Amino acid sequence: MGSTVTSDLFQILRDGRARTRTELAAMTGLARSTVALRIETLMELGLVGSVGDAVSTGGRPSSQFAITASERVVLGVDVGATHVRIAVSTLTGTVLGERHERIPVADGPEAVLGWIATEAQSLLTDVGRSMGDLLAVGIGLPGPVEHETGRPINPPIMPGWDRFDVPGWFEGVFDVPVLVDNDVNIMALGERERSWPEVDHLLFVKVATGIGSGVIAGGVLQRGAQGTAGDIGHVYVARGAEIPCSCGNRGCLEALASGAAIARALRASGLDPNSSQDVVDLVKRGNIDAIQAVRQAGRDVGEVLTTCVSLINPSVIVIGGSLAQAGEHLIAGVREVVYTRSMPLATEHLQIAQSRVGADAAVIGACVLAIHYALSPANIESMVAAGASR
Amino acid sequence: MGSTVTSDLFQILRDGRARTRTELAAMTGLARSTVALRIETLMELGLVGSVGDAVSTGGRPSSQFAITASERVVLGVDVGATHVRIAVSTLTGTVLGERHERIPVADGPEAVLGWIATEAQSLLTDVGRSMGDLLAVGIGLPGPVEHETGRPINPPIMPGWDRFDVPGWFEGVFDVPVLVDNDVNIMALGERERSWPEVDHLLFVKVATGIGSGVIAGGVLQRGAQGTAGDIGHVYVARGAEIPCSCGNRGCLEALASGAAIARALRASGLDPNSSQDVVDLVKRGNIDAIQAVRQAGRDVGEVLTTCVSLINPSVIVIGGSLAQAGEHLIAGVREVVYTRSMPLATEHLQIAQSRVGADAAVIGACVLAIHYALSPANIESMVAAGASR
Repeated sequence: MGSTVTSDLFQILRDGRARTRTELAAMTGLARSTVALRIETLMELGLVGSVGDAVSTGGRPSSQFAITASERVVLGVDVGATHVRIAVSTLTGTVLGERHERIPVADGPEAVLGWIATEAQSLLTDVGRSMGDLLAVGIGLPGPVEHETGRPINPPIMPGWDRFDVPGWFEGVFDVPVLVDNDVNIMALGERERSWPEVDHLLFVKVATGIGSGVIAGGVLQRGAQGTAGDIGHVYVARGAEIPCSCGNRGCLEALASGAAIARALRASGLDPNSSQDVVDLVKRGNIDAIQAVRQAGRDVGEVLTTCVSLINPSVIVIGGSLAQAGEHLIAGVREVVYTRSMPLATEHLQIAQSRVGADAAVIGACVLAIHYALSPANIESMVAAGASR
Repeated sequence: MGSTVTSDLFQILRDGRARTRTELAAMTGLARSTVALRIETLMELGLVGSVGDAVSTGGRPSSQFAITASERVVLGVDVGATHVRIAVSTLTGTVLGERHERIPVADGPEAVLGWIATEAQSLLTDVGRSMGDLLAVGIGLPGPVEHETGRPINPPIMPGWDRFDVPGWFEGVFDVPVLVDNDVNIMALGERERSWPEVDHLLFVKVATGIGSGVIAGGVLQRGAQGTAGDIGHVYVARGAEIPCSCGNRGCLEALASGAAIARALRASGLDPNSSQDVVDLVKRGNIDAIQAVRQAGRDVGEVLTTCVSLINPSVIVIGGSLAQAGEHLIAGVREVVYTRSMPLATEHLQIAQSRVGADAAVIGACVLAIHYALSPANIESMVAAGASR
């Protein structure tokens, strides 16, 4: 009973501003006594807190309530190819503490998830919280994920993880929902949260060992029907028609313009890069062949992005991933093609920018994933309905 | 006051089911007396009606209330290149009546909008409604539209319409908001409403004199940052590299695969089609050259759609527009390329289907555009706040 109304009150407070009971009553049309009761419920759930008294016009001062004073937290986890990071965040996105470790994802789910389970407990203690304060866990994995079940699907660089039930593994560890998504999607969420909070149409493109993107349209991360939205690494690019891709096709963007592809091409011309990072190092040392290869990769990525710009008309394209660290060369190639080939109306206000959040985007995005879930009307309603105390 | 709560009650009723005051009280946690008051407000606004009594377990029977019994209506208008259609619809999408007329859009806004203003009045009277029953008007135009202002922007086939203030022209005619969008967007809305109501990720592609698409992602029509989302007619296709397009570029999809482009190509080989419709007629008469040209156009459209499938992962692609009437040939070409070139995970559940709603899609979609606006929480709240009677 009353869960919808309580959730409505809470959604009003999600903007972070502190308000008195009287203000909330005026905004909702509810009786002040009803508001008082519902705020009590939200405080018992730890979702809002009192932030001191408002200046009152005569009479006694009125308490103000805000989500910024909530006690509850979420966990965000960034699982990369060779590292794991975990962070505790408040419901308004302030990171209270974090841990990281070099663990290859190829060590398998037990090794990676085991580390997360152990560190989560001690990290929460370190920041003065307990498992009971946790509302949700967000996890990003470096491969395709079926978001609804939280299972990786045929992830190429994650042996032992195929269809592994990640949320199921955490039963008994976390008593809250575990949301799983692929790393590029959470990087898009993190980049938007920190650098482009007002932007509702943003395309985040990761150019690293592989190539992928995260699509934010209408203010919402779009996963598509099977969760593969943004998976542009295997779009056909004519310049690479003869180049075989690990997916079995030929001419994929990833086979032509990823860090791995560039390293391979440079090795064929006598240099010795083995990774995306080696390519970046060559560029930073001023190697002309590497610079030209990275710029051409930018053009190839740009060719695919022209169609993306026509289809979803973003106002910002963010280029991230390790290869984006090669200075302006990659992005210059992207701009060269996108601004030339796309329709003027779609590009006149289009910004193409380097990632500003960099390596933190994934762990921040994982926290955002958990916060969005935790604060959704449906979740708040079910928390209220389940009983007003922890 | 109370507008939020009243709007919440109304949103519950949007599913079309009839409910008693007691049921609504249980669902919201509101007091039954509060529900009674708010239902009274919604009935005075004509937004819900009483639909008879529920079977009661002892005591007197309880009235049920539903949006299906509302008295309010919307207008939907489909302005095509050579026709105008107008329809009156209930808030649940039942068309009560319609009118159409052959008016070239090139006759200019006064001629077209004047006809709409006159016919709207008499059509409403015919179906037993008045201007006071109207909640909103949706209009589709055959060119780019800045949705927020309702102005066409550089529309190629609409002389005299550039930046014309369509909603402004209707001031004094309609006392309600006039929403304007391009024809392909409203066709996407209409096709989804009638044929794919459960589908949240749908791409509607119109292949006619021109080529464009409407993107529904996450259940929402996506217009993008400048309203150009879906504008895939000018994506570069290598096979047409040498063909000039009316936009000033070369190699645009539209210059290669639209009905106009196919008619031009067939004329060059000795046939005499002048329009998209002539091409369809040739195909229906079994002309081999025309059949092959339409199938190749399907492949060219399919090439662009492979990138779209990778980016937004729709579960349904609907092919509409006049050229789609050329039997299975167009769609066969689309399928040939999309199913071959896209990643398996994105295509294993992807349906590529012909438009089922056909020529009605636009006018139905225009009604949907108006209904979505009229029934939005924001609009209901402001109606409630403005006073509880018409």
